[in-house]
Amino acid sequence: MENRIKALLFDVFGTVVDWRGGVARDVAQVAPPVDAAAFAAAWRAGYRPAMDQVRRGELPWTKLDGLHRRILDDLLADFGLLALSEAEKEWLNTSWHRLDPWPDALEGLHRMKQRFTVATLSNGNVSLLVDMAKRAGIAWDCVFSAELFGHYKPDPETYLGAVGLLSLTPPEVMLVAAHNSDLAAAAEQGLATAFVRRPGEDSEPAGQYTYAAADLAELAMLLGALSGLPCSCRCRSIR
Amino acid sequence: MENRIKALLFDVFGTVVDWRGGVARDVAQVAPPVDAAAFAAAWRAGYRPAMDQVRRGELPWTKLDGLHRRILDDLLADFGLLALSEAEKEWLNTSWHRLDPWPDALEGLHRMKQRFTVATLSNGNVSLLVDMAKRAGIAWDCVFSAELFGHYKPDPETYLGAVGLLSLTPPEVMLVAAHNSDLAAAAEQGLATAFVRRPGEDSEPAGQYTYAAADLAELAMLLGALSGLPCSCRCRSIR
Repeated sequence: MENRIKALLFDVFGTVVDWRGGVARDVAQVAPPVDAAAFAAAWRAGYRPAMDQVRRGELPWTKLDGLHRRILDDLLADFGLLALSEAEKEWLNTSWHRLDPWPDALEGLHRMKQRFTVATLSNGNVSLLVDMAKRAGIAWDCVFSAELFGHYKPDPETYLGAVGLLSLTPPEVMLVAAHNSDLAAAAEQGLATAFVRRPGEDSEPAGQYTYAAADLAELAMLLGALSGLPCSCRCRSIR
Repeated sequence: MENRIKALLFDVFGTVVDWRGGVARDVAQVAPPVDAAAFAAAWRAGYRPAMDQVRRGELPWTKLDGLHRRILDDLLADFGLLALSEAEKEWLNTSWHRLDPWPDALEGLHRMKQRFTVATLSNGNVSLLVDMAKRAGIAWDCVFSAELFGHYKPDPETYLGAVGLLSLTPPEVMLVAAHNSDLAAAAEQGLATAFVRRPGEDSEPAGQYTYAAADLAELAMLLGALSGLPCSCRCRSIR
């Protein structure tokens, strides 16, 4: 199966970027006394239930920025932060656009890009993903988001939608993620799968995946995507 | 108006890449005796009528690759090329994935990317645009295609769809194109507009556009997007 893989789709939050660190950093800036790590964890804990409301049709389609803001408004009360200005709240809500890649991510993605199409497949909305990539210097070939399909992962429309836009078949496309539920849903649709172990995400692969790797640099090696060439691109990390 | 522009959408065929040269080059390779320039022009002449069939609902949604193939199959008869093998026909059909950028395009796009989100807004399907960008080294922030919206330009759904995915308003987005019809349709929806003069495309701007430029390097200058820094990225052209 491995030899026919032509494109790699990356889950983003947790897999490519460190949401805990980035959100906690920004929370600490506008609300220094708060337990920033607890705030970040509580915000993320609201993510799946909010998306599930959309997935069940209880909420109309809402960009992730909008869901994040709904969750944030509840959290601000819980954490005694109702005194934040509207501008501070909006800035804080876009902390998800300002997450930093894991240390191995730029190098790993750069190497994989030499041999494969590399794209996001994230529940983050398109503008969130574009802002994040520009700030972090991630050179995606293409940005696929749940927003394009009007369905959040793990709905099958997301995996099959990305495969269709790539004009490929499911076995030619591999999802890379740190979450078993995402990988299981992709495998169900016939995609290849790669588990990446990330701090605070699922600690072990729970299925028979095509690959399992410690990080994106190791995945690039497993895929034979070492270019062997000195890097002169904006990825900065392999020069 | 100019100061609020945050994202630039680029028409691709004719505006960023030279379709005449690229298609003629590939036709000459599989069918050397044919008038390659005439073949390329005839192929492109079938493009608007085929898309209009989709736009009027006479054909179901079809990727541009599929429309190109329908037109090609007719042309092969007209040009006495029915003896081509299926593999040669398929290879020829993907010549639209292998078009070269105009000489100023990589440099201009690189400069504009420092200050703006730069994305395609093309009738080409997503995989066509991704293949083209990878081959040519164009580092789009995002690939928007008519395919995402199920509507071909100049349908308003394409311009407004891209603006929505960018989480911007129409005046914050500028369409860059070498075609008056495309620019007029974008202006109708409230987008800013930039005309670029390209050989064989519309020779003069026919409307009151926000900008008009000789090429993408000049447009970058007009937009004040000169970085002044030596380029060390994959754009290769400004080092």
